[in-house]
Amino acid sequence: MTATTAPVPDAPAHTVDAFHRGRFWLVQPSRSGHRAGMDAMMLAAAVPSGFAGRLADFGAGAGAAGLAVLSRCPAAKAVLIERSAEMAAFAVATLSHPGNAHLGDRASVLTADVTLTGRARAGAGLADNSFDFVIMNPPFNAAEDRSTPDALRRQAHVTEDGLFERWIRSAAAVVKPRGGLAVIARPEQLVAILDAMEGRFGDAEMLCVHPRPDAAAIRIVVRAALGARGKLSIRPPLTLHGPHGNEPGERTEMINNGLASLFSD
Amino acid sequence: MTATTAPVPDAPAHTVDAFHRGRFWLVQPSRSGHRAGMDAMMLAAAVPSGFAGRLADFGAGAGAAGLAVLSRCPAAKAVLIERSAEMAAFAVATLSHPGNAHLGDRASVLTADVTLTGRARAGAGLADNSFDFVIMNPPFNAAEDRSTPDALRRQAHVTEDGLFERWIRSAAAVVKPRGGLAVIARPEQLVAILDAMEGRFGDAEMLCVHPRPDAAAIRIVVRAALGARGKLSIRPPLTLHGPHGNEPGERTEMINNGLASLFSD
Repeated sequence: MTATTAPVPDAPAHTVDAFHRGRFWLVQPSRSGHRAGMDAMMLAAAVPSGFAGRLADFGAGAGAAGLAVLSRCPAAKAVLIERSAEMAAFAVATLSHPGNAHLGDRASVLTADVTLTGRARAGAGLADNSFDFVIMNPPFNAAEDRSTPDALRRQAHVTEDGLFERWIRSAAAVVKPRGGLAVIARPEQLVAILDAMEGRFGDAEMLCVHPRPDAAAIRIVVRAALGARGKLSIRPPLTLHGPHGNEPGERTEMINNGLASLFSD
Repeated sequence: MTATTAPVPDAPAHTVDAFHRGRFWLVQPSRSGHRAGMDAMMLAAAVPSGFAGRLADFGAGAGAAGLAVLSRCPAAKAVLIERSAEMAAFAVATLSHPGNAHLGDRASVLTADVTLTGRARAGAGLADNSFDFVIMNPPFNAAEDRSTPDALRRQAHVTEDGLFERWIRSAAAVVKPRGGLAVIARPEQLVAILDAMEGRFGDAEMLCVHPRPDAAAIRIVVRAALGARGKLSIRPPLTLHGPHGNEPGERTEMINNGLASLFSD
């Protein structure tokens, strides 16, 4: 058994994976926990390309989405917020990786539960009115949808009642007026997301992600602005693959590699 | 001034328009009221092609959507339900038109307000548990979105608070268990529709209608089954036109002419 697969706490089994064609790297658990991929890249792509403010990555895991924003937006700063101490340790390892030296001084890791409220939330490091944009990839894979063979993955994937309400309530507290929120989730969670945004975020834009032109959506991305009043708009969908074969389409490749924004801005 | 444009109550100005390439005709007001078109054809196309039951067309207007279902589903029957006596008279004229003789014996017109409840609703002719499918094209153009120069058009287009809740509540009452509901509306009304379906209709399927591949959706169609428990699914969108020009796409033409169903069933 090699060092990279030894399941001991101080050197957990991990992989180091290239993102954005090697422009940044992710240190993440090899066999347990939530492994980052396309979801994180699509979420990051919901941030406008010209974004230059302070970003909160709620439920950051090892930091994939937050770092993808920093990689595409050279003036942005990010706080990677993760409840699990084990996953937060992977985020710290990610920031320490030499391949991320050009991003590391713009990012920090905060071990905190984003569902805290009031003084407890501020005391955990999430001050009100302190971010320009919040991105979130909540643990949205419902428990019944898959077997969860280990505790870490279960913690990341079980949807609890009111999850979106709690996460979006906190986002509304920490973001500045007219600040942004972007959420990636499953189609069946659309109502919970829009209900939680009601009265807090407006100008909502939604985008459906279809694996192929003839297939049902597998993800939705919803973006909105705090205190805005505009109505929901449904943007053209992202279709990951063509009708045949497994090669990602051109637009998918662009988004996956930090070369395009999801909402074309 | 000819007979067809004379604005007198017993012979209101009207047009007779071909639908489904002349397979049925619509007698409708020429200058006032809600004139039927693509919305009605898309709504009708949400009914499965093999549908052979009893359909309720809520807010039927002159009858376009209901007749489009009858035209495509040869064993279906329809009740065209319309609150406005003037529009209901157009629906009666539509059923009496010689070009609709092959459909007329499967349709009837009921002048009733679908937002009635309890005994009042049943007393108006809308008995509980009496339909296999409800389609609805509610008056969804909000008052502020357009000038409404005449009272009849205003009555058809003003969205009131709770409109979808009232319409969908009545649909849940009159449809049989596992019976269907299809709604066409604007994207910004999605939450109101899904909220009203909650606890009543399940297995919801949603489809976004985009005018062009790069444009935001202008309509949504949501279909669901009474008492079903399945989660929301988002189907591939319908794009009306290609990237250039004003010709409808092939699939749009098929749906517009009653040759295809919207959800491919």
